[in-house]
Amino acid sequence: MAIIVKKFGGTSVGSTALIQNIARRIAQEKRPEDSLVLVVSAMAKTTDELMQLAYSISEHPSRRELDMLLTAGERISMSLLSLALQKEGFGSISFTGSQSGIITDNQHGNARILNVNAFRINQELSGGKIVIVAGFQGVSQAKEITTLGRGGSDTSAVALACYLQAGCCEIFTDVDGVFTADPRVVPEARLLPQIGYEQMLALAYNGSKVMHPRAVEFASKYQIPVEVKNSRSFAPGTLIHTEKASKEEMMEERKITAIAHKENLIRLELARDAKLTQLLQDWNNEIFKYTVSENSIELMIEEKYRGEAEYLLRQHDIEALSWEDGFGYVTLVGLGINLDPGWLARTLELCAPFGIRRVQHSDMTIELMLPSEQVRPCVLKLHQAFIGEEK
Amino acid sequence: MAIIVKKFGGTSVGSTALIQNIARRIAQEKRPEDSLVLVVSAMAKTTDELMQLAYSISEHPSRRELDMLLTAGERISMSLLSLALQKEGFGSISFTGSQSGIITDNQHGNARILNVNAFRINQELSGGKIVIVAGFQGVSQAKEITTLGRGGSDTSAVALACYLQAGCCEIFTDVDGVFTADPRVVPEARLLPQIGYEQMLALAYNGSKVMHPRAVEFASKYQIPVEVKNSRSFAPGTLIHTEKASKEEMMEERKITAIAHKENLIRLELARDAKLTQLLQDWNNEIFKYTVSENSIELMIEEKYRGEAEYLLRQHDIEALSWEDGFGYVTLVGLGINLDPGWLARTLELCAPFGIRRVQHSDMTIELMLPSEQVRPCVLKLHQAFIGEEK
Repeated sequence: MAIIVKKFGGTSVGSTALIQNIARRIAQEKRPEDSLVLVVSAMAKTTDELMQLAYSISEHPSRRELDMLLTAGERISMSLLSLALQKEGFGSISFTGSQSGIITDNQHGNARILNVNAFRINQELSGGKIVIVAGFQGVSQAKEITTLGRGGSDTSAVALACYLQAGCCEIFTDVDGVFTADPRVVPEARLLPQIGYEQMLALAYNGSKVMHPRAVEFASKYQIPVEVKNSRSFAPGTLIHTEKASKEEMMEERKITAIAHKENLIRLELARDAKLTQLLQDWNNEIFKYTVSENSIELMIEEKYRGEAEYLLRQHDIEALSWEDGFGYVTLVGLGINLDPGWLARTLELCAPFGIRRVQHSDMTIELMLPSEQVRPCVLKLHQAFIGEEK
Repeated sequence: MAIIVKKFGGTSVGSTALIQNIARRIAQEKRPEDSLVLVVSAMAKTTDELMQLAYSISEHPSRRELDMLLTAGERISMSLLSLALQKEGFGSISFTGSQSGIITDNQHGNARILNVNAFRINQELSGGKIVIVAGFQGVSQAKEITTLGRGGSDTSAVALACYLQAGCCEIFTDVDGVFTADPRVVPEARLLPQIGYEQMLALAYNGSKVMHPRAVEFASKYQIPVEVKNSRSFAPGTLIHTEKASKEEMMEERKITAIAHKENLIRLELARDAKLTQLLQDWNNEIFKYTVSENSIELMIEEKYRGEAEYLLRQHDIEALSWEDGFGYVTLVGLGINLDPGWLARTLELCAPFGIRRVQHSDMTIELMLPSEQVRPCVLKLHQAFIGEEK
């Protein structure tokens, strides 16, 4: 029995028509020997709408009740998909995160997966059913319903693939896979047929939206091969796995694999004092980058988290030293590129027109901070120079 | 025929007595079915002595002649090891980098491996001989002798293991393997029986001296498993490979794997202008970290590169904005640790006594810049708090 886990994101299940498309696609593609587990997100916009409902009642709704509310979203999409599959003649059954046995800690809104007790899924698969699982949700050891926070549905899919010893985890999304740069910014960006976990992790952390870093981290830790593909086409996507260079490649060649970017960041500067520690421990949003200097800490966060950040600062009675918006990041990713300062030299030369404010690096990245409106021209220029068109 | 590549560093071949030890060890351990390729560095101090000779003649010796000179070092150690093996009754033959077919580009002093034509090695292995190869050296396509620069011998060994499709590449050194921290600084540091390439790379870039990042990068790219072990003991060392967590580990647990550190760094600040690009392109030494800000660039380099840096600045007619010495870095390495700001919070709290000047991060590191003399107490404290003693 070959188990395949397929995950469909919010835009892929965004309407009943799209849900029916998925069911038809599965009718075309499923081989008799395949056992399918389908992980679904809530229909696009559902989560936002539910959030709005909650915030219309309370400015700071309790996280426990929010989790109860939000988990209704996947319940809707999973049952609709099950109905659509039954219409196509399949036996199918939908499970919540709790019924699927996804055990988490008790951190409402941002729970981490501790374990998976997948016996109900296994039972139904043995009986020949297609199992649909609500992504993004789980249950704590105290039997409370939890949500996994950002990247949750991808993480659910990868965790199930790990526990079910699935041959592959397929992430269906609204793009064809992982590109050398965002194709909306760089029209000649190329689809990467494969990429190693560590470079994918660097891309994900630095703004690539294809997969959340958390899910990539998980896949890497348990060595789950993940294929990202377009839910609206049948083209092969990008395989994220342990990449091995062929002996024919030039041995010590170093090259830029891909370019990630991030726009619309806020730079929030805070004094480095005792209250900061507590603040960071309670910080639930993503911090895109941080830099601690002698007397202050600089947090780069997305514009959309401004409200929550302001609330958190008030709660901890902390006054920001400064708020400044309009920042962006462009990040070059390539194995070993910082072993050769020539890469930095060429990058600085090429980027002279873009008002680079700062450059930092890790072993496989060169990270440029610049005005948000310069991000796209900068990505275009660097892609042209370092990656170029297909040979 | 199982090929095993074993590399012995400068301290392991530091005297004829030690070289004879290696030969005796091989006599004890070699199974009849093993084909051995032994890669050797120059005897400890030989390279430094040859350098001193050259510098006593010319303040800025030509790189080509330096390469001719320095490659005599491995020629000595490899022929001595071959003699010692023959004394033990083995058939053996030593090869220079050129004879081994290690083809490089023509960058004297810092050449990169382009290809390996290992037919002479294969021929001798088939004839039952043990082959000893000079590490650190190669030959350019114009038949000039080159040296590989820093990390060169490890890189030679990994490249040969790749081309010979060896089952394993063993790096013999003067420590037992990779530890959770430098055991000279943290007595209770633990040997890691295994570590993944990406975390090893982060450790190597951030100061762990066990293996050079360049060789780790190479091993990762071609997926060569590397075992680091002590040349003076028979204990198992650390296996660097594609690490896969077991399902029994807590699924989304994040933890600090190890702590790297670096002492005695100089902070060199330069104006960010047109001359900088050229300087970086000619920069041949290692840059431990760089940070570009709006008007300047800060380079953190090791004290020992001060002289060469000064010379390079003079050559490019660049005046440093400032030189400041006495810096160090302590780096925490762990998968996903920056997905949870709590790690940064605890780190800042624990490090309050150590005068942390700056904190930066990558996806799997938290990097602390601090006064060099605070490095050791800081590593001790963080190891105690985050890694602790063996359970």
